[in-house]
Amino acid sequence: MNFETILGSSDFLEYLRGKKATFLLSGSVTKTCEIPNISQAGIPGKLSLTPTLDAEFLCLKEVRSLEDIAQTPKGVPTPALITRAVHELKPFSNIEILDLGLEVKPKIDYFKIHDFDLEPSARIDDGAKIDAMAVFQAGVQFASSYETNDDYVILAESVPSGTTTANATAKALGYSSDGYFSSSFKNNPSDIKNETIKNALNRVLQNDDVFAKLSNVADNMLIFNAGFVLGSTSKDLKVILAGGTQMATVLLIVNSILESMQGEINSSNIALCTTKWINEDENSNIKALLQQLAFPINAYASSFDFSESSHPALKLYDEGEAKEGVGCGAALCYAAINSIEKITLTKKIESFLG
Amino acid sequence: MNFETILGSSDFLEYLRGKKATFLLSGSVTKTCEIPNISQAGIPGKLSLTPTLDAEFLCLKEVRSLEDIAQTPKGVPTPALITRAVHELKPFSNIEILDLGLEVKPKIDYFKIHDFDLEPSARIDDGAKIDAMAVFQAGVQFASSYETNDDYVILAESVPSGTTTANATAKALGYSSDGYFSSSFKNNPSDIKNETIKNALNRVLQNDDVFAKLSNVADNMLIFNAGFVLGSTSKDLKVILAGGTQMATVLLIVNSILESMQGEINSSNIALCTTKWINEDENSNIKALLQQLAFPINAYASSFDFSESSHPALKLYDEGEAKEGVGCGAALCYAAINSIEKITLTKKIESFLG
Repeated sequence: MNFETILGSSDFLEYLRGKKATFLLSGSVTKTCEIPNISQAGIPGKLSLTPTLDAEFLCLKEVRSLEDIAQTPKGVPTPALITRAVHELKPFSNIEILDLGLEVKPKIDYFKIHDFDLEPSARIDDGAKIDAMAVFQAGVQFASSYETNDDYVILAESVPSGTTTANATAKALGYSSDGYFSSSFKNNPSDIKNETIKNALNRVLQNDDVFAKLSNVADNMLIFNAGFVLGSTSKDLKVILAGGTQMATVLLIVNSILESMQGEINSSNIALCTTKWINEDENSNIKALLQQLAFPINAYASSFDFSESSHPALKLYDEGEAKEGVGCGAALCYAAINSIEKITLTKKIESFLG
Repeated sequence: MNFETILGSSDFLEYLRGKKATFLLSGSVTKTCEIPNISQAGIPGKLSLTPTLDAEFLCLKEVRSLEDIAQTPKGVPTPALITRAVHELKPFSNIEILDLGLEVKPKIDYFKIHDFDLEPSARIDDGAKIDAMAVFQAGVQFASSYETNDDYVILAESVPSGTTTANATAKALGYSSDGYFSSSFKNNPSDIKNETIKNALNRVLQNDDVFAKLSNVADNMLIFNAGFVLGSTSKDLKVILAGGTQMATVLLIVNSILESMQGEINSSNIALCTTKWINEDENSNIKALLQQLAFPINAYASSFDFSESSHPALKLYDEGEAKEGVGCGAALCYAAINSIEKITLTKKIESFLG
């Protein structure tokens, strides 16, 4: 297994080779996921359970808040399987859950679940109604006070319909984004997503400041993690943003906040890690999103794919039906710098599917 | 490799996945082992050497206090081989020996050997003559002051004829135990054991307090480790009791002491880990022992067996000739949460047998 450098140089990830990682899963619900057909990830009608189930499966290899593991209608298994498989082969030193507005608390003992007293945010086509400044400050505060004995932190996400809110956010903040956003759909249900985004943007005034815009069109994960990134730069904490276009949007938010404050950060301890499926996706362009940042960023993509598998459910990843989530891209990069063989990992993932 | 949950939930052990462990081996001699044919573990006539040899083999892969590694008459190799093999594949961060009354000090440098100035205890059919309160308090004190940089402690034991003293102890304390105790024998030499236990219990008065009973029928390991468990709950130390029915008896002692003091403990940081051979043993019932506790307990069994081996000495484990000891069940659970493959471990154990 290996990784490719999307932006920056390989040095950051090479430096982390063999080092210890804490895995933070930030889970959040935006009621945007209740818009019919907005997302193909998760169980229809129960999309808001997805981050809860992902947290349970990652920690325990079982889902306790539902009988069956989340599957999309076409049977694409959640990327939590990939992240869990990596954890079994080369355990993260520590897994913690950030509850950024879940509907159902994961049924997990011992593992730390950080509670920020956040509710699921509203549909962005109706105004997300987020206290964006408070959520942002919670993220800054959490990162500033976060203590770890590990060498770096992998910050992942599980947010159903999160690419829609991310896309709307990037647009609201004035970034070029047309054709740059991936989704869990192979054939983007662009009508529904675009209509949702258009309705969301109708609520945004050109003169709104960054936080006013975020309050309307973002989700808690995006805003909190932008705060986390800024908070982490106040100390010597290395952070991998584990995701695709959503994590790119976190960085765009950081960029806009810095711009509005005429501030600067040292971004040398931040990187983004994603999957090959995102990096080679013809329907999105993560590199083009990241190139709009005013600060330099290291970004990497795993080279892992399911070419060693013949399992039809997994082949759907290679066919573009699923691309990212639950930090699977960063988990695959972590696997690459921790001596996990592609065939071993493939077999482990297959073992979960029976 | 994997593990099964006997009692409680999988969360405790899943939380420890990939985390660092200190391995404490508590070795003790009860002269009960000198009763002819009382145990099939160890070398006939030299059973009291067993914990010394186990400590040496675990730390050094050689036995220095005897020419040959301990073998039972039928050639069942000591479970120290299993624990040692796990240690070679994914080393414990630290191994320390607790001398709870050894006849011969292990010939080991550098590894810490904690000396509590204890003598081997006497035959229980003649009264064990233990200062039970002092031994218990030594355990409490040791745990209370024990410092570690690791995430948890695995507390194992090596006590020849220890299931006999454990069985007598459970009976003396009034627990149901008929048919619940395993031994190193496939066909329990029940006459000798039962006679010994009967003679031991004849010395116990109904009105004796817990410590008076323990003084007569227990061994130093059981009493000290009950103190260790209670002492560890005064701090945030996660402890895995590594063993089968003997470690279950340690918990029964804790239970009786709490009952006599009308005390309570938070047992959420304590778990018991044992082998598949104990968990599936038809001649014993560890679950039934643990279900008599007034406090909740997490208990797990490794799923490891020697189905991948054709070595006749190892197959004896699968045939019930040997089941536990030297923390091998916990070592196998540790292997399961540290990515050791069954076939790799099997080959490693086989390599020790030549």
